[in-house]
Amino acid sequence: MTEAPQPPERYQPADPRARAEAQALLRAATHAALAVLSPDTGHPQLSRVALGLGPRGEILSLVSTLSAHSRALALDPRAGLLVGEPGPKGDPLTHPRLSLEVTAQVLPRDDPQHEARRSHWLAAHPKSALYIDFADFRFLRLTPLSGLLVAGFGRAVPLAAADLGPDNLAGA
Amino acid sequence: MTEAPQPPERYQPADPRARAEAQALLRAATHAALAVLSPDTGHPQLSRVALGLGPRGEILSLVSTLSAHSRALALDPRAGLLVGEPGPKGDPLTHPRLSLEVTAQVLPRDDPQHEARRSHWLAAHPKSALYIDFADFRFLRLTPLSGLLVAGFGRAVPLAAADLGPDNLAGA
Repeated sequence: MTEAPQPPERYQPADPRARAEAQALLRAATHAALAVLSPDTGHPQLSRVALGLGPRGEILSLVSTLSAHSRALALDPRAGLLVGEPGPKGDPLTHPRLSLEVTAQVLPRDDPQHEARRSHWLAAHPKSALYIDFADFRFLRLTPLSGLLVAGFGRAVPLAAADLGPDNLAGA
Repeated sequence: MTEAPQPPERYQPADPRARAEAQALLRAATHAALAVLSPDTGHPQLSRVALGLGPRGEILSLVSTLSAHSRALALDPRAGLLVGEPGPKGDPLTHPRLSLEVTAQVLPRDDPQHEARRSHWLAAHPKSALYIDFADFRFLRLTPLSGLLVAGFGRAVPLAAADLGPDNLAGA
């Protein structure tokens, strides 16, 4: 790179409207782009994953432990998430989206909450009935550290972990 | 994480059909999810960016040098890209997508190819006329190191950098 680092773009302070928009994006999301750290190259490595909320408002994915992203997360749980897919119309860069830094944790099947999570997940992702009970599939809990709502050109709002925590997401 | 790393999912060997599908996804993409490495936390950090090909088949984005992703890339050019957005119908997890590991390089405006890139970009992204000449906007060249085509459940095909290089993308 030939240019020195510069200050980040100007952000707007979080307000109730931005928090509500971010929470609505998370409640509506059925999939997301997930980025993990490649154990081989250190590059961020992206994949499209299923996404949903658990009965207590935790952010979940359902993944095969044989996938490349699960392998990477077993070595480094630092991940990123992008939710809010553009629709077929309009400028995709003005469609609202939420970028999260998250820590990922595989949840064991003997977790006391597994059955509650499974039922809740199946209600929102009925097609996952085909594979949810495969031996290699697990829920992945994605705990937010921070977020950035980008709701159109020039409107970027940093959000705190608490804004995106289970207490604010449960009951969707 | 409670589980030891496991072998990655089984991949299929690259063939002409997979290469053509991946190249078609890149030619059709007008935006993508970009992941960079956060200079603050080391987490992968995602954003949605404009995407297009240059006149010589190079993969380009058009970014503000004031953005958080530009700031991160100035410190570490390792990035990842996900192209192929799901449409409004069907299971988003069966929609074909291409994940790339890329190296990002900001291109200076006095690059001899700048005018050719600018005209080519404007033809594919007419709305960017509003900001393409803003003082802080630059083309970003994303050079692929490797790719993974995921074309539906259970069909994952690793691709080499050469499969996604300018010679195979030019003339779109």
